[in-house]
Amino acid sequence: MNTSYILTIRCKDAVGIVAAAASALASAEAFITESSHFGDEETGLFFMRTVFRPMGARFVTLDDFREVIAPVARRFEAELALHLADERLKVLLAVSRQGHCLNHLLHQWHAGELPIDVVGVVSNHEDMRRMVDWYDIPYHHLPMAGDKPGQEAAILRVVRDSGAQLTVLARYMQILSDDMCRQLEGRCINIHHSFLPSFKGAKPYHQAHSRGVKVVGATAHYVTSDLDEGPIIEQETVRVGHGLNGDAFVRIGKDVESVVLSRAVLWHAEHRVMINGRRTVVFREGA
Amino acid sequence: MNTSYILTIRCKDAVGIVAAAASALASAEAFITESSHFGDEETGLFFMRTVFRPMGARFVTLDDFREVIAPVARRFEAELALHLADERLKVLLAVSRQGHCLNHLLHQWHAGELPIDVVGVVSNHEDMRRMVDWYDIPYHHLPMAGDKPGQEAAILRVVRDSGAQLTVLARYMQILSDDMCRQLEGRCINIHHSFLPSFKGAKPYHQAHSRGVKVVGATAHYVTSDLDEGPIIEQETVRVGHGLNGDAFVRIGKDVESVVLSRAVLWHAEHRVMINGRRTVVFREGA
Amino acid sequence: MNTSYILTIRCKDAVGIVAAAASALASAEAFITESSHFGDEETGLFFMRTVFRPMGARFVTLDDFREVIAPVARRFEAELALHLADERLKVLLAVSRQGHCLNHLLHQWHAGELPIDVVGVVSNHEDMRRMVDWYDIPYHHLPMAGDKPGQEAAILRVVRDSGAQLTVLARYMQILSDDMCRQLEGRCINIHHSFLPSFKGAKPYHQAHSRGVKVVGATAHYVTSDLDEGPIIEQETVRVGHGLNGDAFVRIGKDVESVVLSRAVLWHAEHRVMINGRRTVVFREGA
Amino acid sequence: MNTSYILTIRCKDAVGIVAAAASALASAEAFITESSHFGDEETGLFFMRTVFRPMGARFVTLDDFREVIAPVARRFEAELALHLADERLKVLLAVSRQGHCLNHLLHQWHAGELPIDVVGVVSNHEDMRRMVDWYDIPYHHLPMAGDKPGQEAAILRVVRDSGAQLTVLARYMQILSDDMCRQLEGRCINIHHSFLPSFKGAKPYHQAHSRGVKVVGATAHYVTSDLDEGPIIEQETVRVGHGLNGDAFVRIGKDVESVVLSRAVLWHAEHRVMINGRRTVVFREGA
Repeated sequence: MNTSYILTIRCKDAVGIVAAAASALASAEAFITESSHFGDEETGLFFMRTVFRPMGARFVTLDDFREVIAPVARRFEAELALHLADERLKVLLAVSRQGHCLNHLLHQWHAGELPIDVVGVVSNHEDMRRMVDWYDIPYHHLPMAGDKPGQEAAILRVVRDSGAQLTVLARYMQILSDDMCRQLEGRCINIHHSFLPSFKGAKPYHQAHSRGVKVVGATAHYVTSDLDEGPIIEQETVRVGHGLNGDAFVRIGKDVESVVLSRAVLWHAEHRVMINGRRTVVFREGA
Repeated sequence: MNTSYILTIRCKDAVGIVAAAASALASAEAFITESSHFGDEETGLFFMRTVFRPMGARFVTLDDFREVIAPVARRFEAELALHLADERLKVLLAVSRQGHCLNHLLHQWHAGELPIDVVGVVSNHEDMRRMVDWYDIPYHHLPMAGDKPGQEAAILRVVRDSGAQLTVLARYMQILSDDMCRQLEGRCINIHHSFLPSFKGAKPYHQAHSRGVKVVGATAHYVTSDLDEGPIIEQETVRVGHGLNGDAFVRIGKDVESVVLSRAVLWHAEHRVMINGRRTVVFREGA
Repeated sequence: MNTSYILTIRCKDAVGIVAAAASALASAEAFITESSHFGDEETGLFFMRTVFRPMGARFVTLDDFREVIAPVARRFEAELALHLADERLKVLLAVSRQGHCLNHLLHQWHAGELPIDVVGVVSNHEDMRRMVDWYDIPYHHLPMAGDKPGQEAAILRVVRDSGAQLTVLARYMQILSDDMCRQLEGRCINIHHSFLPSFKGAKPYHQAHSRGVKVVGATAHYVTSDLDEGPIIEQETVRVGHGLNGDAFVRIGKDVESVVLSRAVLWHAEHRVMINGRRTVVFREGA
Repeated sequence: MNTSYILTIRCKDAVGIVAAAASALASAEAFITESSHFGDEETGLFFMRTVFRPMGARFVTLDDFREVIAPVARRFEAELALHLADERLKVLLAVSRQGHCLNHLLHQWHAGELPIDVVGVVSNHEDMRRMVDWYDIPYHHLPMAGDKPGQEAAILRVVRDSGAQLTVLARYMQILSDDMCRQLEGRCINIHHSFLPSFKGAKPYHQAHSRGVKVVGATAHYVTSDLDEGPIIEQETVRVGHGLNGDAFVRIGKDVESVVLSRAVLWHAEHRVMINGRRTVVFREGA
């Protein structure tokens, strides 16, 4: 009854899309509680996210609305997705030895602030097992052991077996192979500990210190086979003074990383993020 | 031909508003380039702003679209406004002796960055005349001279005679009478040099310094008869350290004031701001 | 050998203080690695914090340097404190039912990022016991049970018995009595979930939402008997849009609260914060 | 009498520098009102900035204090500079066709907020002449006219003839030759319209848009022959959403550029900035 649905649409822009989608919903007595559109003049693509609530008796279930909206999708050749708003996304977390992002995500999830189900944690180290055990979720220790293809295959098995819809690299310090990147395309988010595109690659805070920047940042992005070049979901920055060395940058950056990654996961889980070539459209809550 | 229109709607929320408005526009071959909605669950009000471009030959002028959208307004008993996107809002600026906000607004206007026509400047002092003269706009020196009602009447005459649609208090240091506030309701924006509701009234930076805050701010809001209590349009903050005194707060705050006020004026002029009781809905550009 | 010391001085400002302190340190072959001064022209007070490292053989221990610096303290009638830089401050945490600040502080402490020893957690509820158990520190459940004086006495006993040098109210939702505030004066930090002095008292985020602000914040301050009026140590803000309600403000504010409180605890533990009447001097790391 | 002096010291770090400098000042009855030090553990360099006021009758003039401090400089082989605090730095501004940074600097200077004397403006275009005329300062139109060496020689003549101690590239869109960079080393500040080291070179906002960043920024730095690689003085960022295109980035970035550049000029003029290899030490006002 009080269930809400989230509809997302992505298609070539044209006259009448909003009218068609909104009319279909109105004809099914759906009350729109939140809606955002964006037409990209450069790519000619149209993006839409609408949250609605059934108000009548005839159209109630996910399938009812699938049927309602299907003609719109056909007419505009649109990619269309329809989700229950309180459906929780299945998420697998990956971590190496730095636990701040993992701790933040797990705490938020446990406090009911992220609409996700954490289905497990994979790691190439044992360090975070005790933290994960406390949350009663499986910890998969998958060390590299000189066999990267084997280790990645093992991770992908966990993804498949756990039904994970999203994999989050929460300071997982291994570079994924091109093949793995492709398999997880659009459903793998990484946190990079710099304000991309500055300071790609290793030790970004020490690179930043050596360059003498006055602000550092963190970047959450979809993983692609082009290292640290995937579509950016969220970034944030924090000031640093001359008296801080590279290690201090590392410490200060941790809070920014945690916050940026958890926003990206939240927005992805709420179907607010849509990929637009090398860029993303992010329909932020509350504008 | 390439003219765009901006449609804003405000009404009691209900099923079918978006559908009705979007369908009316689609039927008139209007291509939507930007659109935002918001339904406030607390007040039960619905707000919408849509930018569209005529694509056909039959519906072209403002009046054409007025007719197209009129039935929607009637059906939902909506307040509706339709503007040419490149229509420039007539703006009157008011200032006392501090010129930073005035200078910033005039420069942006002159550089073509604000969709406004500055129709004049009123001041209770002569200080800013030379700056205003450079821009070739009228400077109305209206000193208080112990006669506040008379002075306010003179300002209102300038508003009327100049056709000003918006009055901007760009560091105008007189408190408007209740009557004047009422006459300018919804079309008078003030910049308050604090992060409201902290530090209402006089010398806010010195109040802030004496309280020992670590961040100061500025607030642009619609003027109401309740001093410094009008609906807030925009706020921004900046850090201050222990080594800065009240005068330093004043200096540092100036840039924040200028930026906050000019954003508020831009958003108002682009019809992005809608009053929602004591609050505002601001459909920010680019979300 | 490689031990560093932190010297703080607070006295009436005068010619020669820096010279006297620095000369005393130089005469003892101390190498200054960090130093900050501040003379407040309003209060006429001088504040100094200096970090130094013994370089010679004759002056090595805390007592050696106490003797070196004592004449300076006498001459300028200064309050003076000398600490080992790697001495860890004993900290007692207090919490009610919201665990985000507690979780953040405990994780940072456990990861070695805060120079403190957490000697226990007190709470008027049982909710956080399981989290605290994981960290192997004592959890003192001290419910109100209609006896506030008795409950406060119990807390003060924990403070005394644990040797806590600082008590941190990490979302502890009881107002301390005047008497308790006085007993903990200068060694009790609270996080208030608003940008003080706006929105003192209960439900600040809902107050903020109802006022229609565009930015919310959090404030870490020393507790005094004047509720939410103690000297501010740190503040930070975050933007909020019209589409967020009071509950969303609460959620978004949590990260700001956690970060602000942990900065305040870090800076206090590193002896960077000195009380200056209603204000604080904060010698921030890295300026 | 009430004149203050600013002393800056740069040398190899050693025990006793602060003591020697402070003692010399104390012996001359100088009252220190502001003082900051920094010892860089990486480079082994020590930086100090001290503001003091004569309190006695014997040591009063700049020369008096030069004599007082000279032995300290000799002993530590320090680069030392001593300035009257109210001495105004002579500044030459350079601009092309975008006037926002120029307008901001000129307004602040005119309002008495920058401790500088603007001795003129050079430009490769005529666009800004009328603005500059209003301020009654010389406008030197030095077009490129296919003769870069000649044009640069003309600029350097203006620098010399005007006695400019600092040249500020306030959106001057020509790349200076290596030779010119060397001649102005340490006394030429540029504003780059990106968050360096991201997006060096031309059209940085459009590069940023195409990369899909969520935050853009501006960077004020000393000019060196290595394009956009000089020591950074100040940076600041601002959020951008998916709905903004490259031109919108340009518009939004202008305020950040103006603020960042004017801070850099203020801090340089107050002798707060010291070059430390590829980095800078910035002793910010109020910490």
